[in-house]
Formats: sequence, C-alpha cells, structure tokens
Amino acid sequence: MEPSSVIALTVSYDGTPFAGFARQPEQETVQGRLEDALRTALRRDVVTVGAGRTDAGVHAFGQIVSFDAAGDEADMGALLRSLNALVGPDIVVREAREARPGFSARFDATAREYRYRLVVGSVPPLFLAHTAWWVKPRLDVHAMREAARTLLGEHDFRSFCVTDSALGKNTVRELILLEVEPAVELGEACLVVRVVGNAFLHSMVRVIVGTLVDVGVGRREIGWVGDALAARERGAAGQTAPAHGLTLWEVEYPEDVWSR
Amino acid sequence: MEPSSVIALTVSYDGTPFAGFARQPEQETVQGRLEDALRTALRRDVVTVGAGRTDAGVHAFGQIVSFDAAGDEADMGALLRSLNALVGPDIVVREAREARPGFSARFDATAREYRYRLVVGSVPPLFLAHTAWWVKPRLDVHAMREAARTLLGEHDFRSFCVTDSALGKNTVRELILLEVEPAVELGEACLVVRVVGNAFLHSMVRVIVGTLVDVGVGRREIGWVGDALAARERGAAGQTAPAHGLTLWEVEYPEDVWSR
Repeated sequence: MEPSSVIALTVSYDGTPFAGFARQPEQETVQGRLEDALRTALRRDVVTVGAGRTDAGVHAFGQIVSFDAAGDEADMGALLRSLNALVGPDIVVREAREARPGFSARFDATAREYRYRLVVGSVPPLFLAHTAWWVKPRLDVHAMREAARTLLGEHDFRSFCVTDSALGKNTVRELILLEVEPAVELGEACLVVRVVGNAFLHSMVRVIVGTLVDVGVGRREIGWVGDALAARERGAAGQTAPAHGLTLWEVEYPEDVWSR
Repeated sequence: MEPSSVIALTVSYDGTPFAGFARQPEQETVQGRLEDALRTALRRDVVTVGAGRTDAGVHAFGQIVSFDAAGDEADMGALLRSLNALVGPDIVVREAREARPGFSARFDATAREYRYRLVVGSVPPLFLAHTAWWVKPRLDVHAMREAARTLLGEHDFRSFCVTDSALGKNTVRELILLEVEPAVELGEACLVVRVVGNAFLHSMVRVIVGTLVDVGVGRREIGWVGDALAARERGAAGQTAPAHGLTLWEVEYPEDVWSR
C-alpha cells in the first residue's frame, strides 16, 4: 500500500448509547470509539473523517469513515477482524477498502441516503422499538407522498434545519429522492421514508419527516409544505421527528475513488 | 361477552431479559409479567395458558396466551391499550380476541411455526445481534436443505430433545415444513430457518438448527442426519443452537375457535 493512500471503512452502529458520531471530550461517541480501536490496532494516532455527522441517537447502516494510511497496515481483511474485536458493542465495521490518495469520506461523497422508519397504529413496536418512531394516529400516505413531491429538487432548505447552524451559510441543497413506502422488518409492519440528497443540513431529514407526518395525520394541508419551504425560517416547517427512527443508510462516491 | 368465553392475546416479546415464558417464583418471566398486568387491568387474579413454553432468551412474534373471561371485561380494544400500558418493556400485546368457551391456546393449537435467524460470515451482526446466531464459517445451504428433507414428516424426534424431558413420553412429532431461505432484515443479510410442526419437544428446534449447521459447515455429512434420527438418543444429533436466534413466530388454530 502507498503511504499516501487512504483507507475507507463502512461502519454500522446502533446510535442508542452514543452522544452522536462526532468525537467530543468526555463523551461516548462513535468516532471516539473507532479512533481508540484504530490506535490499538495500528499502534499510532489516527484522525478519521466521517461522511455524515449523525446526531445523538441516530443510527447508521453504511456510514463511511476515512483515514490516511501510513503504509504499514496489515491487509484489509486482518484490519477488519481486529477492528471488530476492538471496537466494542453497538458498532460493527462491515468493510475496509483502499481509496486513492487525498480521498475524504466527507468531501468526495456525491449522495447520501437516509432512511426513517415509522410504526403506525395503536400497537407499539417491539423489535423495532429502538429504530422506529411510533406514531399512533393513522397516516394518510397518499397526502404524505403529494407533500414530498413539493420538496424534491434543489431548494433553499433553511426552514428545515436548526436555525443557529444555518446562520450565514448556504442552505441550498438538492433532494434527489423522497419516498414513503410500506415495509415489514422482523415481522413488524412499518413505513420507511427514504431520503436521498447530495448533502443535508443539520436535522434536515428529521424536520422533513416531522413535516410529512404533520401532513399525514391531517394536522396540516399538503399546500402548507410549499409555504414552509418558501418562508426560509425554522418556525414555518413541522416538528422534528425523534432521532431514534433515523438511520444514515448509504453514501455514494464516484467509482474511481477506489484503488481496486 | 359470555362469562364462559375465553380471551386470546397475541403477544410479541424480546426474550433477552426473561427467564423464559413460563411463570417461575422470583424470576422475571413473560407469563408472570402478563398475569401481573392482567390482574391490574381486570382487578382479579388471572391464570393464563401459553401456546408454547419458550426457554430463557427465546423471542416470540406471535405467541398466543389464553385466559377465561369473567364476563366483565371491557371491549377488546380497551383491554389491548391498558395491557400495553401496564406490561412494561420488551413485551407487546398485538391483539386481543374472543374465543369460544373451553378454548386453550395450548391444546387447540394445530400447528406452530418457529423461525431461527443465522448471520453468516466474518462480519458480526449489528441490528440483528440479539435475534440472530452469528456463524462465522461459510454454510453450504444446499447441503442443509438436503439434510432438512430427512427430517420432514412424522418421526420419533427423541434424538432432538433434552433427554430428561423425554423420559417415558411419546416423542413422535410431525414436521410439516423445514426450509432454509436467505433474507434481509434491517439491511443485514441472514439465513432464516422456518420450522412448522404440529408440536415440538423441548429444545427440538434448536437441536434441529444446530444439526443443520453442523452439516452446513461440513462437520457432518448429509446422511448422518438420518442416522441421528434413527439413534433415538440426544448424543446422536448435533449441537444445540443458542436461544437468542430463535423466535416463536406463529400459532395456528381451527377457524371455528374465534367468536367472530
């Protein structure tokens, strides 16, 4: 391996016990645990970059985490096994790949997919209790899909993010896909909101889902979603859906970033 | 409601924190927790009958639990809501139905389906960590399916149950279906062993799965499964698969047991 190449890890985690992805002093974080495991496995300090900074309680299926190789890494299979032995519970490293020099899991990402799981009805989820939001009233899925169409494409999503984090920043993002589909996971019926975009603002997926649910329960009209988008202030959009229903599902990169 | 009719609950539980389904003094059990909730909801002592006595750590999606109605029960929807508010974490009551007088969740069951989930390969399960057995070596699914055919139909399954519990008892059971199918749950690839039979001996599904895995990893030949069956002693069959991969999935009854 070239000393200047980069290693990319595909990482799953259950966000429940973590104060989020990003390393913070004195807190249990996914990045902190990964960097501790890497330090032990590679016997040197490692600084990682994550494709998405997931909040406290948010899960990941295919988070991508990159770090510079020093040229002395064991083969990728051996690295994978030792990381999984070291990283502790609630995190699994699914894959380790070599990427071209200069690769960044964050800046080279061309699209990100999030999935938000809802369990609807009077019976609470059981096997999905930690990975789905339980919404008791019936949802009008047709109305939610109509509302979702308003949000597709390139827009200023300022109304759909935590205000402080957006101050003075470019809040234009492009939503490539936003669909609401029924699914069954571990036997339990649920609705999955799939959201694909080039990049996302802080809490953007959770505000989108909360807004769609506001329409689905009949609290708001379909047309209100366009007004909320046009208003460009957080108060105009709907509620923020809880963190535990959200999973960073997959991150896309150009094919040529991989060494093999 | 007639005083002599029976109420049947459809119950899901995560078996992880429980010492099994069956009530035991000083132990956290599913039946104990359900009977406590029923006592509070109905203000009288209630004795329940479960369709399957699942062991410690075994889960259920559609366990059926019956008890005699006293004629003063609220409507089924209200009973469902108060039970779910009272029963505590890791148990969900999915449905409450009225059955004909004399109905027993155990003795009227005509078939039971169990599902056993396996995650195969060098990468451990994450979202399925508590509901799947992680088997590291590759499995020959074709060989497992061939071996499964040997077990289908009516046989003396004495080799496939805990010896003490079978002493002096009829150990003939009928396996109606035994299949091994790939599946994806919460994003994770797995194998699901579906087992349907009229009734099961103690640990029978776990020994069947352990035996199929012994064949799948190449530790045993396909033909050995027939020899194990013929031997009629526990030592002849394979390992006992761990409890946490097993879920009591569904219980079947004749249509005419339901009041409506």
